[in-house]
Amino acid sequence: MDTLWAQRFAQRTQRMKSSAVRELLKLTELPDVISFAGGLPAPETFPLERFTEASSKVMTEFGARALQYSTTEGYRPLRELIAAHASRYGIQVEADNILITSGSQQALDLIGKVFVNPGDHILVESPTYLGALQAWNAYQAEYIAADTDDDGYIIESVDAKMRTGPKFIYALPNFQNPSGVTLSLDRRRQLIEVADHYGVPILEDDPYGQLRYEGDHLPALVTLDSQFRPTNGAQYSGNVIYLSTFSKTLSPGVQLGWIVAPVEVIKKLVQAKQGTDLHTSTVSQMVAYEVAAGGFLDQHVKLIRAIYRERRDTMLASLKAHFPPGVTWTRPQGGLFLWLKFPADLNAADVLKVAIEQKVAFVPGESFFVDGSGRNTARLNFSNASPDQIEEGIARLARCVSQFMP
Amino acid sequence: MDTLWAQRFAQRTQRMKSSAVRELLKLTELPDVISFAGGLPAPETFPLERFTEASSKVMTEFGARALQYSTTEGYRPLRELIAAHASRYGIQVEADNILITSGSQQALDLIGKVFVNPGDHILVESPTYLGALQAWNAYQAEYIAADTDDDGYIIESVDAKMRTGPKFIYALPNFQNPSGVTLSLDRRRQLIEVADHYGVPILEDDPYGQLRYEGDHLPALVTLDSQFRPTNGAQYSGNVIYLSTFSKTLSPGVQLGWIVAPVEVIKKLVQAKQGTDLHTSTVSQMVAYEVAAGGFLDQHVKLIRAIYRERRDTMLASLKAHFPPGVTWTRPQGGLFLWLKFPADLNAADVLKVAIEQKVAFVPGESFFVDGSGRNTARLNFSNASPDQIEEGIARLARCVSQFMP
Repeated sequence: MDTLWAQRFAQRTQRMKSSAVRELLKLTELPDVISFAGGLPAPETFPLERFTEASSKVMTEFGARALQYSTTEGYRPLRELIAAHASRYGIQVEADNILITSGSQQALDLIGKVFVNPGDHILVESPTYLGALQAWNAYQAEYIAADTDDDGYIIESVDAKMRTGPKFIYALPNFQNPSGVTLSLDRRRQLIEVADHYGVPILEDDPYGQLRYEGDHLPALVTLDSQFRPTNGAQYSGNVIYLSTFSKTLSPGVQLGWIVAPVEVIKKLVQAKQGTDLHTSTVSQMVAYEVAAGGFLDQHVKLIRAIYRERRDTMLASLKAHFPPGVTWTRPQGGLFLWLKFPADLNAADVLKVAIEQKVAFVPGESFFVDGSGRNTARLNFSNASPDQIEEGIARLARCVSQFMP
Repeated sequence: MDTLWAQRFAQRTQRMKSSAVRELLKLTELPDVISFAGGLPAPETFPLERFTEASSKVMTEFGARALQYSTTEGYRPLRELIAAHASRYGIQVEADNILITSGSQQALDLIGKVFVNPGDHILVESPTYLGALQAWNAYQAEYIAADTDDDGYIIESVDAKMRTGPKFIYALPNFQNPSGVTLSLDRRRQLIEVADHYGVPILEDDPYGQLRYEGDHLPALVTLDSQFRPTNGAQYSGNVIYLSTFSKTLSPGVQLGWIVAPVEVIKKLVQAKQGTDLHTSTVSQMVAYEVAAGGFLDQHVKLIRAIYRERRDTMLASLKAHFPPGVTWTRPQGGLFLWLKFPADLNAADVLKVAIEQKVAFVPGESFFVDGSGRNTARLNFSNASPDQIEEGIARLARCVSQFMP
């Protein structure tokens, strides 16, 4: 019999499903499985020595302050560092426009808590980031999916869907998770125009922006939006909220992300965070500041780029060498993922069952769609496995896929 | 003009008010203010050396693992340590009954997310913990307040309110925040009986249980409930969810708390946490384990008890020496707070204005009540200021209060 507590779950919990990705991770943790399933950074890129020094410095220099409660907004030097970083990319924000979050996932949760009424529609890419859906399902959001291609959101599709009155547009413009595609510069401008035309704000999620392996950096939506509208120049008051994180550049284990938003929005998010977890770990914020400061972050990102570029290239070459005709894939210019498309009648979940027996894993794409489509798609991560493992894993996966091809 | 984002706040944000306590903290951060307003532990109790050693050990021994993503449930050795600790207090739970949270505040948030539908009633003590109200306001909870006295919940009042059908009973049995009172053993048993009679589960919040300065330890509600009902002895399936934290025993800055619950409830809370922040900082959990392990936690708590006992005694003696007749206060057996009651027509907020001019601060009690009462009450924290500051601060405060007495 269920305990009294279990009889009392709220309605919203019916929509909380355990993440397909995370459940799969459990299956694929066996040491001899080559996993392209997760989204883990390569541990060999973690600046362990710098973290060790920073931890020691924080304890020595800040002592008890590092172990005490701190403000909900976040550690001010870290907020200033992030604001300065943003300003270099052409958006004028100050520390007051920054809220430090317990990872990027908390940023998505707080956005849901502050903006989403039950039944509100959110316009998302198709496919879209699963973690965002998990965050907003708890607030009983509904989704409208706009079509995408190799240049990201198809603007005509966005325009057509805007008439349904979404609360906001969710966009992951750089090396999107899961598809790996990048929103082109033209489409970025058009997306802002469409959003402006309908008076709908944009949530820009940018965990991977710094991890570009080829081509030129494209300005963020938040930057283009700022240039697009006349401002008084003093304080950020644009229609884009921007999210990013240290999880892919320094370490996911410290769980540090941030939100860039107008001050009035930050204030409301701060109130929501007070009730959510009071503040993000003081010591983690201080350590991350010491690690990132002095230009280290930008310098370290170059190392990560070199390592991940090689892995992406290895995966693309292995796919080309081993995969049967009839399967296509994206060619991401950065990030951690690429995206497979099998023939329409092939179910990726069936492939996965065989693949796990053959000690290779990936994520079937269906859970990244809000409309039940995408059964013939799959996400592959190329950041975590070594180039040798990638070659071997893709060869194994090709043999599994071939069994299902006509 | 409001930005587009600010025009789109969800309905629930209307109930999110910035914490009175936290806003006040800003006013009282000036170095010459003696503040009894916050709930900060004494920084001199933080085991800084042990944290420094543990940080260094974690980086050396675990390396990249400490900086990588980890499971939502929490670091297994830490969950096992907490389960073993709970078992010593007479409740049979295993690591699978434990979820590590980003501080106790996140535990309250997750409880709200998993259990509270809009309009659900929660039965709370009057006064009750403000942080819980902040967490659950976001889920549009309503509250029913039961009366309390110097022994905590008055059972007749609880019984009378149960007919309104609360979702659960919220109880803070040890040295309650804000009042400092402790639920007596008899009343603990009676509360469980009443809850059982009506089939309503209990949420037990116990951040201060280990910080007892006099009298015998009283068994937790979760322990009594386990003894009360026949179980198969194998797995915890009681009607009490139990919350605690390292914030008052090791450090608040690391933001680590935990939930003890039946496995089926833990699973649902894990799903909610996946969408909320994925997992709590890996490195913080590993460091906290290394700090707490080997019996250090129990040993360190003795030191904290000695320091806080002296501060409590100093505050009680100073109140007796300086305060005018007509003001009463509680005599907490542990914890961080005591509670003042002024004559009925005296408004504590008026006293605070004068007090801040006189460089002493406290929290007016009104915000701890859900029914707008308590204007003549105040919460005093005795853990953060030194005994000398407590003497001086209480003398100052007595002069302010005297101005308002008839």
